[in-house]
Amino acid sequence: MTAYARLTARAARIATLGEASAMLGWDASAMMPTGGAEARGDQFAVIAGLSHGLATAPEVAADLAEAEASPPGDTWEATNLRLLRHSHTRATALPPDLVEAMARAASACETVWRVARAQGDFAMVAPKLTALMALVREQAQALAPALGLSPYDALMDGYQRGVLAADVAPVFADYEAFLADALPRAEAIQAARGPAIPLEGVFPEHLQEALCRSLSLGAGLEAEHSRLDRSTHPFCGGTPTDVRITTRYRTDDFAQALMGVMHETGHALYERGLPSGHARQPVGEAAGMAAHESQSLIIEMQASRSDAFLSWLGPRLHETFGGSASPYAPANLGRLLRRVDRGFIRVEADEMTYPAHVIVRFRLEQALIAGDLAVADLPGAWAEGMQSLLGITPPDDRLGVLQDIHWYDGLVGYFPSYSLGAMAAAQLMAAARRDVPGLDVALSEGDFAPLLGWLRRKVHGQGSLHGFNDLLVHATGKKLDPNDFQTHLTERYLKP
Amino acid sequence: MTAYARLTARAARIATLGEASAMLGWDASAMMPTGGAEARGDQFAVIAGLSHGLATAPEVAADLAEAEASPPGDTWEATNLRLLRHSHTRATALPPDLVEAMARAASACETVWRVARAQGDFAMVAPKLTALMALVREQAQALAPALGLSPYDALMDGYQRGVLAADVAPVFADYEAFLADALPRAEAIQAARGPAIPLEGVFPEHLQEALCRSLSLGAGLEAEHSRLDRSTHPFCGGTPTDVRITTRYRTDDFAQALMGVMHETGHALYERGLPSGHARQPVGEAAGMAAHESQSLIIEMQASRSDAFLSWLGPRLHETFGGSASPYAPANLGRLLRRVDRGFIRVEADEMTYPAHVIVRFRLEQALIAGDLAVADLPGAWAEGMQSLLGITPPDDRLGVLQDIHWYDGLVGYFPSYSLGAMAAAQLMAAARRDVPGLDVALSEGDFAPLLGWLRRKVHGQGSLHGFNDLLVHATGKKLDPNDFQTHLTERYLKP
Repeated sequence: MTAYARLTARAARIATLGEASAMLGWDASAMMPTGGAEARGDQFAVIAGLSHGLATAPEVAADLAEAEASPPGDTWEATNLRLLRHSHTRATALPPDLVEAMARAASACETVWRVARAQGDFAMVAPKLTALMALVREQAQALAPALGLSPYDALMDGYQRGVLAADVAPVFADYEAFLADALPRAEAIQAARGPAIPLEGVFPEHLQEALCRSLSLGAGLEAEHSRLDRSTHPFCGGTPTDVRITTRYRTDDFAQALMGVMHETGHALYERGLPSGHARQPVGEAAGMAAHESQSLIIEMQASRSDAFLSWLGPRLHETFGGSASPYAPANLGRLLRRVDRGFIRVEADEMTYPAHVIVRFRLEQALIAGDLAVADLPGAWAEGMQSLLGITPPDDRLGVLQDIHWYDGLVGYFPSYSLGAMAAAQLMAAARRDVPGLDVALSEGDFAPLLGWLRRKVHGQGSLHGFNDLLVHATGKKLDPNDFQTHLTERYLKP
Repeated sequence: MTAYARLTARAARIATLGEASAMLGWDASAMMPTGGAEARGDQFAVIAGLSHGLATAPEVAADLAEAEASPPGDTWEATNLRLLRHSHTRATALPPDLVEAMARAASACETVWRVARAQGDFAMVAPKLTALMALVREQAQALAPALGLSPYDALMDGYQRGVLAADVAPVFADYEAFLADALPRAEAIQAARGPAIPLEGVFPEHLQEALCRSLSLGAGLEAEHSRLDRSTHPFCGGTPTDVRITTRYRTDDFAQALMGVMHETGHALYERGLPSGHARQPVGEAAGMAAHESQSLIIEMQASRSDAFLSWLGPRLHETFGGSASPYAPANLGRLLRRVDRGFIRVEADEMTYPAHVIVRFRLEQALIAGDLAVADLPGAWAEGMQSLLGITPPDDRLGVLQDIHWYDGLVGYFPSYSLGAMAAAQLMAAARRDVPGLDVALSEGDFAPLLGWLRRKVHGQGSLHGFNDLLVHATGKKLDPNDFQTHLTERYLKP
């Protein structure tokens, strides 16, 4: 057995443990009774400990050195070896004590955050968040020299390899300028049109669920490799051959669940389309969180909210829910499902204002990691950011700094992925429309196959062969180009 | 850290991995789409491999020797140490090659069995079963000297420690004699009564499910520590703080699901009542498969089919399903739910004929392991056994030797547990009735609390502190006494 073969065998075992953990994570959110939580925490911890032990065993360093001395000739294998080295560097850069302290502090902070958020009391969670952020900074400082990155970049690297804050900052600054002009114009156009005919009524959960499942399967997810269940926070979990998506239903509004399911279906299709010949190897995984978000958003925002698809969807919705046909007319549906709105809550934001929410967080978390901002000053800085980008100030911290779990769970460097993904989705859609004649005609018949086929070739099947920007070069001929997203928004929101 | 503390810490990690595996097993049966099966198999294998590695690591032997040199003074801890030694002996007695060969052969045999059973073609699976049985014999022969048991006893020991074939054989012989007399008498009494009023109609699945859940919770299972789901083969899985029971529903018959759920609820209550202070240690586990079956059967057969409980249940059923009240009259319900019937299928058997099915299997599997019976001769020997014990001969192998998965999965020595459990359930119920005044009055009000309280003290809370017979001594003042079961059957079926 060669050193490389030993490494891949070990990586496969680690990935298989990760699958077990992923399934248990899905269960914890979608199925588990509350009384199972404590034992489940132990199950995660034992699996994580064994996994970390496998990843950092002394023989791995020796095998990596031996394999690197005569690297595989095949591009996929050579890339895989580089990624194995990368994950070994990350795994060994952190002292086990710090990993454990982080896990404990994150769990403690998240617990207090749940109460603090409910009560809108930031001061309640500030001490725990301060302690957690001190550990996150320690983590960033331990990773930075090992990876040859700045501390904040070392954190971002954990979610989307190869993207630096210095690349993101000008993209976001440019978007800020675009938004300052575009948002008032979009609002004016929207106001001039007057209100859309609302979707009112009671939409039974079982009808919504059946519809969501059928649309998800219609988009290309296979019944024998997926489930659709319910959870408080919608997500896509599971493993590539057994993807589990979840949503939540409100009987007074079906659009949230429906578009939520299309979003998660995008994530799920990416997992399903990963190169199975490289399953359980780093090179066979999704290319990162920004890449993943590009796939959820190309299905949800780009395809499912397109004029073409809505013209097909409207009659299906009317058929399902009955009542008057007029709200389901494609133009009206478009006005309902594509509406800009300056709101306080990121996860409820429309696609034009969403990046503003991300930009605020991106800037604040950089300052936190650099030590330029104290946790105690976060609410004020948050309010300033929202005022500056969206011209609104949250009336309380529940609608402000307390809304997202990320920081309270120790996740710093994740937020940029959301908007990089949105921009990449627009760029990919533009390229797909150029490459695939009839893509919109197909969508107007409810047919995702041409788009999915293109995504499988250009994105899904590429696994982690490329980094984020190189993947975009492979698929679209150029690195991330934020203009495609602005063009998309201009087309959709700024045509009177 | 003492050697004993190191051992218990390791045992807890192994048990926690076992919990993860148990949850994944539940998922595989109740939730997983078919496309996830292959990856799931790998997940089980990796977890089993890590678990086996932890159990057989060289330092365990050293720690056991060190701990045994000055054993803990506390009875629970001393017993735990003995059980840790016992499981180490079992884990290290088998060469890893044999374990792997067994796993592969069992999986191969089970796969062919599914087709063979559907087609009623024993010859199709005979070669795989022959190969598997050769490995089971090897396994038995490797375990026997390590445990100081005969090969068949060494297999039985894997399911119910401390019970020997030599103890079981006379109990079963005695039952055979009882049955020869009792069964025709019970049938004559039944015939003399004429047919019961049947439960006819359509019983919607959601009504059955809600009723089953409510009865299960009514028997004492806590909603925050349990779930009720659906699977092809009903079972009780999960972990002590998160028990998962399953059933299946037929719209033309609710009794199967209902009694099936009460059966699994009995298993679940046992898991819930195990001593939490000894969780994840051998001494904190259930006392074996016969003990476990005694708990499912005391809830299902003893309590839920008692006159007292049926008098409460009848009106609830009528309320749920509507229609005529007469089938739900307690006496009629009793005749429907307590009916002896010479059938071919073990899992559908009534409580009087059930042991006959077990006795046939017990005798055949002993002969298989002793090498006195060839796999090719199984169908004939099966038919002879059924003819001799129940006076019926299966018309085909689907209704005969192909019906149960156990042997085709390499499980030999398990079957006796079913009937030992049934006998223990009768003995425990008799003792509970003596110890707890008003137990049947409570059941006639749908109240399981007095019975459950007694079981928690006498059985559940004892974990594995006692072996099967000592547990019965603790709870009832005597070892397994098959007369209590015969008395129970006489009361229930032989009073004209």
